[in-house]
Amino acid sequence: MDLREGRKRVVIEKVSPEIDGGLFAVKRTVGEKVVVEADIFSDGHDLISCVLLFRKEADHDRRALPMEPLINDRWRGSFQVSDIGRYFYTIEAWVDRFKTWRRDLKKKVHAGQDVSVDILIGLKLIAEAVPSAGEKEVKALEERIAEIDCASDAVEKIALALDDDLAELMLSCSERRFVATYEKELPVVVEREKARFSTWYEMFPRSCSNKKGIHGSFKDCEARLPYIAGMGFDVLYLPPIHPIGHSHRKGKNNSPTAKAGEPGSPWAIGSEAGGHKAVHPELGSFDDFCRFMEKAKDLGLEIALDLAFQCSPDHPYIKEHPEWFRRRPDGMLQYAENPPKKYEDIYPIHFETDRWQELFVELRSVVVFWIEAGIRIFRVDNPHTKPFLFWEWLIGEIKRDYPEVIFLSESFTRPKVMYRLAKLGFSQSYSYFAWRNTKREITQYFQELTGTEAKEFFRPNLWPNTPDILSEFLQTGGRPAFMVRLVLAATLGASYGIYGPAFELCENRAREFGSEEYLDSEKYEIKAWNLDDLSSLRDFVGRMNRIRKENPALQSNERLRFHECDSDQILCFSKHTEDFSNMIFVVINLDPHHTRGGWTHFPVEEMGLEAHQGFQVHDLLSDARFLWHGSRNYLEIDPRVGPAFVFRVRRRLRTERDFDYFM
Amino acid sequence: MDLREGRKRVVIEKVSPEIDGGLFAVKRTVGEKVVVEADIFSDGHDLISCVLLFRKEADHDRRALPMEPLINDRWRGSFQVSDIGRYFYTIEAWVDRFKTWRRDLKKKVHAGQDVSVDILIGLKLIAEAVPSAGEKEVKALEERIAEIDCASDAVEKIALALDDDLAELMLSCSERRFVATYEKELPVVVEREKARFSTWYEMFPRSCSNKKGIHGSFKDCEARLPYIAGMGFDVLYLPPIHPIGHSHRKGKNNSPTAKAGEPGSPWAIGSEAGGHKAVHPELGSFDDFCRFMEKAKDLGLEIALDLAFQCSPDHPYIKEHPEWFRRRPDGMLQYAENPPKKYEDIYPIHFETDRWQELFVELRSVVVFWIEAGIRIFRVDNPHTKPFLFWEWLIGEIKRDYPEVIFLSESFTRPKVMYRLAKLGFSQSYSYFAWRNTKREITQYFQELTGTEAKEFFRPNLWPNTPDILSEFLQTGGRPAFMVRLVLAATLGASYGIYGPAFELCENRAREFGSEEYLDSEKYEIKAWNLDDLSSLRDFVGRMNRIRKENPALQSNERLRFHECDSDQILCFSKHTEDFSNMIFVVINLDPHHTRGGWTHFPVEEMGLEAHQGFQVHDLLSDARFLWHGSRNYLEIDPRVGPAFVFRVRRRLRTERDFDYFM
Repeated sequence: MDLREGRKRVVIEKVSPEIDGGLFAVKRTVGEKVVVEADIFSDGHDLISCVLLFRKEADHDRRALPMEPLINDRWRGSFQVSDIGRYFYTIEAWVDRFKTWRRDLKKKVHAGQDVSVDILIGLKLIAEAVPSAGEKEVKALEERIAEIDCASDAVEKIALALDDDLAELMLSCSERRFVATYEKELPVVVEREKARFSTWYEMFPRSCSNKKGIHGSFKDCEARLPYIAGMGFDVLYLPPIHPIGHSHRKGKNNSPTAKAGEPGSPWAIGSEAGGHKAVHPELGSFDDFCRFMEKAKDLGLEIALDLAFQCSPDHPYIKEHPEWFRRRPDGMLQYAENPPKKYEDIYPIHFETDRWQELFVELRSVVVFWIEAGIRIFRVDNPHTKPFLFWEWLIGEIKRDYPEVIFLSESFTRPKVMYRLAKLGFSQSYSYFAWRNTKREITQYFQELTGTEAKEFFRPNLWPNTPDILSEFLQTGGRPAFMVRLVLAATLGASYGIYGPAFELCENRAREFGSEEYLDSEKYEIKAWNLDDLSSLRDFVGRMNRIRKENPALQSNERLRFHECDSDQILCFSKHTEDFSNMIFVVINLDPHHTRGGWTHFPVEEMGLEAHQGFQVHDLLSDARFLWHGSRNYLEIDPRVGPAFVFRVRRRLRTERDFDYFM
Repeated sequence: MDLREGRKRVVIEKVSPEIDGGLFAVKRTVGEKVVVEADIFSDGHDLISCVLLFRKEADHDRRALPMEPLINDRWRGSFQVSDIGRYFYTIEAWVDRFKTWRRDLKKKVHAGQDVSVDILIGLKLIAEAVPSAGEKEVKALEERIAEIDCASDAVEKIALALDDDLAELMLSCSERRFVATYEKELPVVVEREKARFSTWYEMFPRSCSNKKGIHGSFKDCEARLPYIAGMGFDVLYLPPIHPIGHSHRKGKNNSPTAKAGEPGSPWAIGSEAGGHKAVHPELGSFDDFCRFMEKAKDLGLEIALDLAFQCSPDHPYIKEHPEWFRRRPDGMLQYAENPPKKYEDIYPIHFETDRWQELFVELRSVVVFWIEAGIRIFRVDNPHTKPFLFWEWLIGEIKRDYPEVIFLSESFTRPKVMYRLAKLGFSQSYSYFAWRNTKREITQYFQELTGTEAKEFFRPNLWPNTPDILSEFLQTGGRPAFMVRLVLAATLGASYGIYGPAFELCENRAREFGSEEYLDSEKYEIKAWNLDDLSSLRDFVGRMNRIRKENPALQSNERLRFHECDSDQILCFSKHTEDFSNMIFVVINLDPHHTRGGWTHFPVEEMGLEAHQGFQVHDLLSDARFLWHGSRNYLEIDPRVGPAFVFRVRRRLRTERDFDYFM
């Protein structure tokens, strides 16, 4: 205990947000608010005042904003972050003598007591504010003192002493004694908007030739760009584009041996043609890649690369840095395994190597290489199989120099590991969304993601499918199942993505019963997709993404709320902007097989609508409009027609009362 | 981030208990356990091992106990505290290479794979354990290596490698690489048993003469001791015994002026006869007090004194240390006020004085003075009106030299302030119990006190009445209301107290409607109580306290559980010892006016009883016994007969099956 602080009487505790005692940063994007709360109190009956202090990392001066009391000694304040980078915040509080004096004076006056001594005390407090006040304030304070001094009687003195303007003046410049400062400065990492709101499309470049068995190139990818941009995506994520190893190359359907001409898995990185800084020769040259990236940019598509830190047996690192790999007692290097499964086409990097520092530096150079080529988004493959400390260091290093870079954590593992990775700095994270299908599962999971501390550091990116995940729901529910999952992903998540064209073409054949692997998975072969298939969801996806772009409520997860419905197959939820100017109400039939109906509940009054007046709901998917009165409304959804209503709720209809001549 | 730790892969977080990031200690009494949990995990698929480390403050060496995994990366361990004083605990965890290797070997063997290389890896791990192992272990390890080496075939090698004894041996001595240690050592304050389990009686010594208008003395108090001890109390708390001021002395019923001969409030401390280190002359001499204390001790009663740090206008401090009091602009010292109320017989101490350090030291000397006289329990008056830091310093100073001293916080204020005081070091705290009367109120409040983090630092002391609190429930419910509140206090709380003889004599006259003040309050006058009143609860109180002494389940709040009952006036709860050898099931009618009945629920199976077999419940209040089968039983309670059943549940009845010749 620090006895130098013997007279600081105010306690500041239970500050929120504060991730693991301030060890990790709260995440925001440019323009968002940080709402800070804390328990703040003092001994005794004196009143306190509190300010929220914040600064950008480079600044030394902090701005102060007043905090307001809620109930039960909880206080709240907020500030807005305007720039990419790091911010810090903390809290100051003190016993406010003038505020306390003013409250007590009022009570005494009310009780008819003599307050002449109290007036003298107040004058002293005003006088004490003078030495530290600004020039203008000094003048005002001195005027106030003179006025009260000269007032002809007690009643006038009291009125002048209790004047609201004086209270305000004193709030800003009264002497602050024994100010308590919260012992930590808490960090905020502010990223660009895309860290919060992004729409991803994953595609294998080698399948872009559209010709069976012909390896696609970056030039073919260029031709595919308008198709993807046309659906409204803004991030195009490519599996690894590096040279693929030959040794133990996997064949079709993950066969342990590849036949001649089989392309292998893009995640078996490295060959004589190079490693993580090289481009697979069959895709084209590095320049081809750069040109493709530029074309994508012109269409509003940002390219995201895959960071998969592992090596094929033919990767240059194997020869140049054998010490980065685990060696078995028989002298061989250790391939990847998850016993009894073996992945002989891949050697994991041994992060416990004695030469770990050189390893870290080399891996950073891989990221910098692609950043210098123009990449600003990385999807990180299995980050949970590399040390936490490595990611904390790497992301810290990169974001110091390139704060606009976004990292997406592709980690499907235990909950606490996924959260830890997010805390370490990943901008976005894959989630359990693919396996949350029932009303209860979805509600619980999204209440956790958006209603607990997780919302401060974990930004979920929702993927209904990936090359590794063809969920049971998609396997069995036909085209309506794909529509249900798309609407859920696109409306529950400010960021979502699909693995296409498998998704929009409703590819749902699994390798075997009980497996989530695709039959004839694109991971091991070149596919030719029929993009013009009549049952393609291309237009539906495009409409959904346009709705997202036009409705700010869907661009954040901040105000997601679930609402009641008496059918356990119908899920209702809403999102709205802080000012309610944009309100979305989603009603979705989770059953892809049958028409379902139910009474939905939309909390009219909490949404700023007047219960007695009607309001309009406009289904942005079908363009149908309904007039509703009150919170309970019956809806029926036939999954063969469409899986959901995505209503834009409009505040208020014009009625005859709005005309000037009414009444 | 500390990059020297680049290869520590294990994360230890969300440690519990941990009060405010380790700022405050967890509380225990001698013999209790500290159960520690944490989220502990690593990257990848390797297995980890964790140990809980603990030590006494004076020791440097820490003992290590293994932790066990629960679900979802949560681990648990526990240790027992055997001595008064401070303990510290922390956690270590590491990737356990042998455990991981063993798991993987099993999987590979199960899949029929060749494991010859794996056996070599295992041998290497065993060999690596040798350098740091003890002599005996070295021998065992070397034997194991030789055995596996010499085994004739793969099957035998595998069997030897997977041997359970080897696993155990390696758990204790395998090489621990890159061990992660939790960054904090967390404190525990261990106090004597009375901090947890105590039964208090509050009494005004001056009312002990038993003669109307005659000031009682310590000698009179001696005569009262057998009465109090006979009811089974073990702490006798006296309001301040110091000289009472004359100036602005309060009269009967808090009248602003005292008539001649009126004794004044004992909390208006200090006169020409002395201050906080003196004894009120009319009570007797300091020696009389010491003799009284000795007599009490002989009867198993410990005396608790009141620490009320405030002064009457006649206190010696006023002249000797005017700088410790606030001075008004008119030159007068500032009396206590809570506008518009004035307490002109009391001057609060001004803790913001420039001479606060001298003040702190003087107040500590008051406590030390009474400790040297033999006092080990203090009831602290209104600690929430003095700075938090003062208490943290004072209690820390006192407990360093006298760790057996117990402080009870008499703070009835806002929840967070009450909790903060408890965290600062108070052994026990007054609570909101007096105002929790309905089933819902009681259940919610005690679930908070015993089922949240509060249980680690806040030990409630339950008082159905105090000289300041005659609750509405007691005012209106007659004698049955006093019985209800007594049973609740004595069974819900391991520590409770009553203000007597007002309580056992069921004094329930309030000063006026809407007030919780007693009519003719003992705070302002000398009372003569008729202890032999036929309606006295003396015997009932005695029985209740005997039940507490005989049933360890009631001596802790650790396993308090509420159970269902279909009547909202009947409250059911249970407490049991960790081993279920003592189980108490309380069923209480909260309505003091009417007979109430209901179906109670006692969770037979969770309590280690067998549902198909009967069990005996023995009402320790009435001595009635019932045989019950199953968890649901109907009970009816007439408050005019008795307010409650306090059942001792006995595990199992003898049946014919228990005879040797059965079957």
